[in-house]
Amino acid sequence: MGKKQRTAITPTRAEDFPEWYQQVIKAADMAENSPVRGCMIIKPYGFALWENMQGVFDGMIKDHDVENVYFPLLIPLSFMSREADHVEGFAKECAVVTHHRLEASDDGLVPAGKLEEPYVIRPTSEMIIGDAMARWIQSYRDLPMKLNQWCNVMRWEMRTRLFLRTSEFLWQEGHNAFETAEEAQEDSLKMLEAYRVFVEDYLALPVITGEKTEDERFPGADATYTIEAMMQDGKALQAGTSHNLGQNFSKSIGIKFQGREGDEEFAHTTSWGISTRLIGGMIMTHGDDDGMIMPPRVAPHQVIIIPIVRDGQDASTINTYIDDFVAKLKAVGIRVKVDNREERTPNKMWDAIKKGAPIRVEIGGREVDDGVLTYIRRDIGKDSKTTCSVADFVSDVQGVLESIHDDMFNRAKTFRDENIKDVDSLIDITDYFSHDANIGFVRVDTSIMDLPGFEKALKSHSLTTRCMPFANDGKKVLIGKAY
Amino acid sequence: MGKKQRTAITPTRAEDFPEWYQQVIKAADMAENSPVRGCMIIKPYGFALWENMQGVFDGMIKDHDVENVYFPLLIPLSFMSREADHVEGFAKECAVVTHHRLEASDDGLVPAGKLEEPYVIRPTSEMIIGDAMARWIQSYRDLPMKLNQWCNVMRWEMRTRLFLRTSEFLWQEGHNAFETAEEAQEDSLKMLEAYRVFVEDYLALPVITGEKTEDERFPGADATYTIEAMMQDGKALQAGTSHNLGQNFSKSIGIKFQGREGDEEFAHTTSWGISTRLIGGMIMTHGDDDGMIMPPRVAPHQVIIIPIVRDGQDASTINTYIDDFVAKLKAVGIRVKVDNREERTPNKMWDAIKKGAPIRVEIGGREVDDGVLTYIRRDIGKDSKTTCSVADFVSDVQGVLESIHDDMFNRAKTFRDENIKDVDSLIDITDYFSHDANIGFVRVDTSIMDLPGFEKALKSHSLTTRCMPFANDGKKVLIGKAY
Repeated sequence: MGKKQRTAITPTRAEDFPEWYQQVIKAADMAENSPVRGCMIIKPYGFALWENMQGVFDGMIKDHDVENVYFPLLIPLSFMSREADHVEGFAKECAVVTHHRLEASDDGLVPAGKLEEPYVIRPTSEMIIGDAMARWIQSYRDLPMKLNQWCNVMRWEMRTRLFLRTSEFLWQEGHNAFETAEEAQEDSLKMLEAYRVFVEDYLALPVITGEKTEDERFPGADATYTIEAMMQDGKALQAGTSHNLGQNFSKSIGIKFQGREGDEEFAHTTSWGISTRLIGGMIMTHGDDDGMIMPPRVAPHQVIIIPIVRDGQDASTINTYIDDFVAKLKAVGIRVKVDNREERTPNKMWDAIKKGAPIRVEIGGREVDDGVLTYIRRDIGKDSKTTCSVADFVSDVQGVLESIHDDMFNRAKTFRDENIKDVDSLIDITDYFSHDANIGFVRVDTSIMDLPGFEKALKSHSLTTRCMPFANDGKKVLIGKAY
Repeated sequence: MGKKQRTAITPTRAEDFPEWYQQVIKAADMAENSPVRGCMIIKPYGFALWENMQGVFDGMIKDHDVENVYFPLLIPLSFMSREADHVEGFAKECAVVTHHRLEASDDGLVPAGKLEEPYVIRPTSEMIIGDAMARWIQSYRDLPMKLNQWCNVMRWEMRTRLFLRTSEFLWQEGHNAFETAEEAQEDSLKMLEAYRVFVEDYLALPVITGEKTEDERFPGADATYTIEAMMQDGKALQAGTSHNLGQNFSKSIGIKFQGREGDEEFAHTTSWGISTRLIGGMIMTHGDDDGMIMPPRVAPHQVIIIPIVRDGQDASTINTYIDDFVAKLKAVGIRVKVDNREERTPNKMWDAIKKGAPIRVEIGGREVDDGVLTYIRRDIGKDSKTTCSVADFVSDVQGVLESIHDDMFNRAKTFRDENIKDVDSLIDITDYFSHDANIGFVRVDTSIMDLPGFEKALKSHSLTTRCMPFANDGKKVLIGKAY
């Protein structure tokens, strides 16, 4: 046995996956905990990733004829009570605004100006958007109405983890209203499919699409559809959900309209959301023991260039060569960054690795003399080291990025598929997960859910049903541990 | 005298400017009041405008090497107290979070889970971002640090008005830290200049750049710079501000670093913001008695096309003609919308007018037969009615939009310049504004501010100092009524 390979991240995934996760975020400088309980600060590199994700998905939203809007942050307390399941689902974790100013006192500043009716900081906006829809929708001619907002929401979580579960997070929430049940059903599946395309084709996260069991539905929904991803520790991450709310919310809020026959009908509504949690999913799917690996299509920097200037060497020729190269890359639409910091070259290389730029380019005096460059794929590492001409790199770079995307996706998909096991009974399930070496999901006939208290029993083993996959025509249910 | 000209907006600007303003927003369907006290709902058309504004200014921010981030919505109460002037400035209008869940009681849902330390919903983020900078900045090598966030903020306003003054609003807040006082000063002026370029070149709002008087400074700032616009009723609108915070915030929060000589120094910080209030400024600068006029460079739809189909006429030829035209416009980067609603043609025309699309195109059977189209500039109206070939329109449309922008800007600038009067004394000032016909600003030597209680006296006449314009080398002060 040789000596232990040095890794950039300590501990490794195998040693302590949750701690590895925190250390990857720190090493990539993506986010950190804030002095506000359970709330994170998204740092420039993490936010640049989120902006790229937003840019892509916002385009997809608009292609679906959804219009962006902005609704108030605060929800009147009385609104929360209108849908019984909904309030039940969110009352336990609401930030409540009770006062509207601060006053000096012997104890320092204290809240003053008590509000007649308290407000809740939105945990989600079905109620306040539904209330507006009730005013805006008069006739079937006003339908469909499709609205979305990119905003912050707040759920007072007790155990938080950067990106995965924070008291405040950023998301998009779509809220659509339709004339018929069929349209609402079709729409909730269509938005789920938009999520699948987005996370698979842009974030390189393979997901299983399916329906949540009744126990796992969004509070107040008729049906919740989900995309479920498997992390490298085998745990599930719910990566996005789309809800068919039927007429539950429209009846409790009063979204009614004059139908084609002149009769009064209630709208059929849907809601759908993805959040900054997806960033946690990308880290836990793609990261390795050297840190983050950014999926190329949303990577803040697709190519990072490290000038290699030896002590006493004149940097100007190298810099001119790099400037010219950068201009060529930008001309073909590549997001590129040059690491020009006053910092030792090995540190720059390790920073590029930890931050996970898909392609690292090294250019020193020798490269300049030969009119070439050296590049390394982050996902493969030094075995991918290639020297080629600048012209070849510029013409091939899109293709290399595509290959990185495909390889990242396929590696994650292979891992996932290898870690799904078909079983037959509750005993099989608990037995499977009782072995440390067994991770991932088990798949079992949905008939198992007829066992009284089945999902409660699962939970006592820290297991949950993830979804009834569409691929199995809803006849199987996937079970696993989850984030 | 002929009979009164019909206008799309009632009342007219002359009849009741504030009510005209509300009616323009309603007629253009941009925003409305929400059930949450003082908070607005930004509707799709208003939000599309904000998105275009964001897109432009976000690019300018990035050109200034500022990085986007996201900080928590909630500010611990203790943070607010750290800068005395700052808390004094914001304590009177803070939304305070005191509880973290809801509980059922005989009175319905009530706040429960009282927090040990209350939180304030950010009215601005100097304190929470400064606290992070204090951790992140160790050495002069970490400077400059330039951060920005696009977010919601909350100030509990008592008298609110859509866009202009709402309890919650959307904005960007930039927070920069520098090694030297000179850099901070230069930066606050540079960001002010970015605002001037943005509002003049994209929103067609002429502004006066200058410094605020000491009384009107941002709480805790050494200097506040401002861009001031004049609305059509002569009132001022503060359209954006940039603050040189000196070392006030860095000292109270502890943003210190090891300087080049190894000594410990405090950073010099700046902050700068613009908000959805700018939309109010655009309405009150550009709107007319028929409604909104959108500045072309940020207009949600630069061209709106109205198909004119007579009863019994086959629409398909017209629609094909329009589809082809739309494709050509999109190919040259024009934001275009076709009004395909089942609605009477005159109503469509009036909606286009009220929403203020810069160019309205009408295409009916006659246009199709002749291979032409008819267009009308919103800012000029029917006198600009022109018939030309599709090819000519497509090749000229950018130029027409530029002319509209320039004309809108120049009209507003002429109006403003005509309504600034030079005066010499406090008596002159109050006398000027005592005549209903006199609107706008007066300009007076800054020496007038030596009069004890001068600005307080002004306020008793509902007047405020707007700024000491750079154009007058800071030797004059502008005074007016303000939003």
